[in-house]
Amino acid sequence: MDYEHYFSKRIADLKAEGRYRVFADLERICGRFPVALNHRDGKTVEVVVWCSNDYLGMGQRPEVIAATHEALDRCGAGAGGTRNISGTNHYHVLLEEEMADFNAKESALLFTSGYVANQTVLSTLGATIPGCIIFSDELNHNSMIEGIRHGRSPKQIFRHNDAQDLERLLAAAPKDAPKLVAFESVYSMDGDIAPIAEICDVAEKYGAMTYLDEVHAVGMYGEQGSGVAERDGLRDRITIIQGTMAKAIGVVGGYIAASNACVDYARSFGPGFIFSSSMPPATAAACLASVQYLRKHPELRVKHQERAATCKRRLSERGIPVLPSVSHIIPVMVGNASLCKQASDLLLSDYNIYVQPINYPTVPVGTERLRITPTPLHDDSMMDHLIESFCAVWDRLGIAKAQEQKAAE
Amino acid sequence: MDYEHYFSKRIADLKAEGRYRVFADLERICGRFPVALNHRDGKTVEVVVWCSNDYLGMGQRPEVIAATHEALDRCGAGAGGTRNISGTNHYHVLLEEEMADFNAKESALLFTSGYVANQTVLSTLGATIPGCIIFSDELNHNSMIEGIRHGRSPKQIFRHNDAQDLERLLAAAPKDAPKLVAFESVYSMDGDIAPIAEICDVAEKYGAMTYLDEVHAVGMYGEQGSGVAERDGLRDRITIIQGTMAKAIGVVGGYIAASNACVDYARSFGPGFIFSSSMPPATAAACLASVQYLRKHPELRVKHQERAATCKRRLSERGIPVLPSVSHIIPVMVGNASLCKQASDLLLSDYNIYVQPINYPTVPVGTERLRITPTPLHDDSMMDHLIESFCAVWDRLGIAKAQEQKAAE
Repeated sequence: MDYEHYFSKRIADLKAEGRYRVFADLERICGRFPVALNHRDGKTVEVVVWCSNDYLGMGQRPEVIAATHEALDRCGAGAGGTRNISGTNHYHVLLEEEMADFNAKESALLFTSGYVANQTVLSTLGATIPGCIIFSDELNHNSMIEGIRHGRSPKQIFRHNDAQDLERLLAAAPKDAPKLVAFESVYSMDGDIAPIAEICDVAEKYGAMTYLDEVHAVGMYGEQGSGVAERDGLRDRITIIQGTMAKAIGVVGGYIAASNACVDYARSFGPGFIFSSSMPPATAAACLASVQYLRKHPELRVKHQERAATCKRRLSERGIPVLPSVSHIIPVMVGNASLCKQASDLLLSDYNIYVQPINYPTVPVGTERLRITPTPLHDDSMMDHLIESFCAVWDRLGIAKAQEQKAAE
Repeated sequence: MDYEHYFSKRIADLKAEGRYRVFADLERICGRFPVALNHRDGKTVEVVVWCSNDYLGMGQRPEVIAATHEALDRCGAGAGGTRNISGTNHYHVLLEEEMADFNAKESALLFTSGYVANQTVLSTLGATIPGCIIFSDELNHNSMIEGIRHGRSPKQIFRHNDAQDLERLLAAAPKDAPKLVAFESVYSMDGDIAPIAEICDVAEKYGAMTYLDEVHAVGMYGEQGSGVAERDGLRDRITIIQGTMAKAIGVVGGYIAASNACVDYARSFGPGFIFSSSMPPATAAACLASVQYLRKHPELRVKHQERAATCKRRLSERGIPVLPSVSHIIPVMVGNASLCKQASDLLLSDYNIYVQPINYPTVPVGTERLRITPTPLHDDSMMDHLIESFCAVWDRLGIAKAQEQKAAE
């Protein structure tokens, strides 16, 4: 077989389908978020980033930067090993204690990323609890899907955010079988939020554990910002809370928080944890400083919600087809991969606005979109420019406005 | 089912088997490697770390620290997204160019970790090349095994470092089937090195791609330090070279290097790449500075090999049962999980020497060991102390010496 030819052919197919990904080559400017330099054709241009997952700009907070510098000078650039073999640094211990307390759980465990946390914990539970059935929301993130698949336990997919459908499946499963319900709080592509209480009700009724991915909620919901389960007063009903430190916390890495026994189980049996080098001490220090700041500053979350709501309202008023999300995420529907990419390219080249096109497989074909994530640091003048630029691009490319999309349905 | 009880029971079993892992709570001291503080019972004690995977102490090099500080001030603490959605920073682009050049390949791709690189690339190739058969060395690392399993393609396990056995399996496979041979250069637990040329010979004869994990060789072998394939002049015969930046490079993260088409394929189809937030810009800057330094300083590698050879020789002369490895890794065989842990505990508590016990599942039951990794920064007096301490602990615990182990075989 000609492997080179095969690889090239598959890449050519992606290009023909309009879903070949070109990464914007950015240079973040510390202290000027959301402004960044865009490297292109040997030149750099200042752009406003409107699609960052650094939802609160924490990655550039002076307190976070200072803590990182300090830990770097104290401990160096790397951890030097896996957690078991010389790679546990005191900053990891402190951060795990903080994350446990932050999530109101007994214990917490760090992972390389949120992806690895989901992949490792779900596959380990599925593979090592004999007969365990995993019930998974149909819109769960790829990391959860891959984890569940890899564990090879029986699985059942329930309709998105549908506790009744979940109950139907739970009721049909053997009464004595171990069960786990895996779902997210904020779904990142539609910006909708799970009915956590209802899901816990049915999970408890049928004796199932619950696994809640708070990746797109951490830092942003709840009085201290640990997520939607905190906001809704439901953390004690969730068996395992999973999250990331790469989004609103502004750094990198993933975690779970749960009971001592459950965390120790994941720590002792999860290959993706056991066999990975641990995050640099300075990264752990950055996360620690960020979480400590976030817990004490609810006003950041208030401002964040205001910015998102204002942006959503203003786009809607101008007929831009915004999905009516209940979170801070603003999906603007285009519905065509090639058009979506053209809109993104035009916003970047002619308006210095960076919003990445979201195409299949991240979202279903026909629901391609631009996904806007306003932060507390996007000011009114940036928003004015965004609204006018979107309207101009919609006109120039003849993309359907909200009314037209509705009429076409 | 009582999940808490189940988790606790399994943990109790680990403890009873003597293979419950307790992580040493270290605090690395930048500039004093291999010395670190060990946190224990609320106190800290200075210890010499003899099991670090920061094999050359690069994580504490002034050039690496300076580059990290600079990037942190320029770009902040995090990347802000996945590579596709606002998370590509110019430092990632520069590092990928450097890693391609370093490995004498057209292109390179960064991953969260070496684990994720193996897991993602092997599972993606296995799952997306129809009919692909993967031939895997029986002692491959867990990350490769999990990746191959997850891809669910047919697989064949060949005897460790045995090109003849590989040929037997390749010859028996359908001639037209796509094939991939996955193996490591330096095996980290025994410290032996693969016969890369012989494996390439048979792979080429039967039209198979080759995937070489250089994780425990990067930085340490070859004129510029890209690994054993460089040392042996064989890089152009390897389809995909995989490595880590968490060991001799001294930071964190993984990579592959290959042809443009092959790397673009992994970039476009690998879920663990697509759906993970990218490493912080400052982490990429640290890796970049480290690799640039390593390429220009072969004397580090010379010193490293001398230290390892000297330590191995001196331990052997005193009858300590060292596995006759051909690499920088020194496995000292104990052969019993509980005794291995006792030896490690005693070295730490009474001699301020930290060497982690290596137990199942990292190595087979009955081959439990202490794994020593001398670096260029372990000086003669540290080594004197190590040798004397090992001899004392061997006597105190009555562990079999080399002659006795041989006699018992």
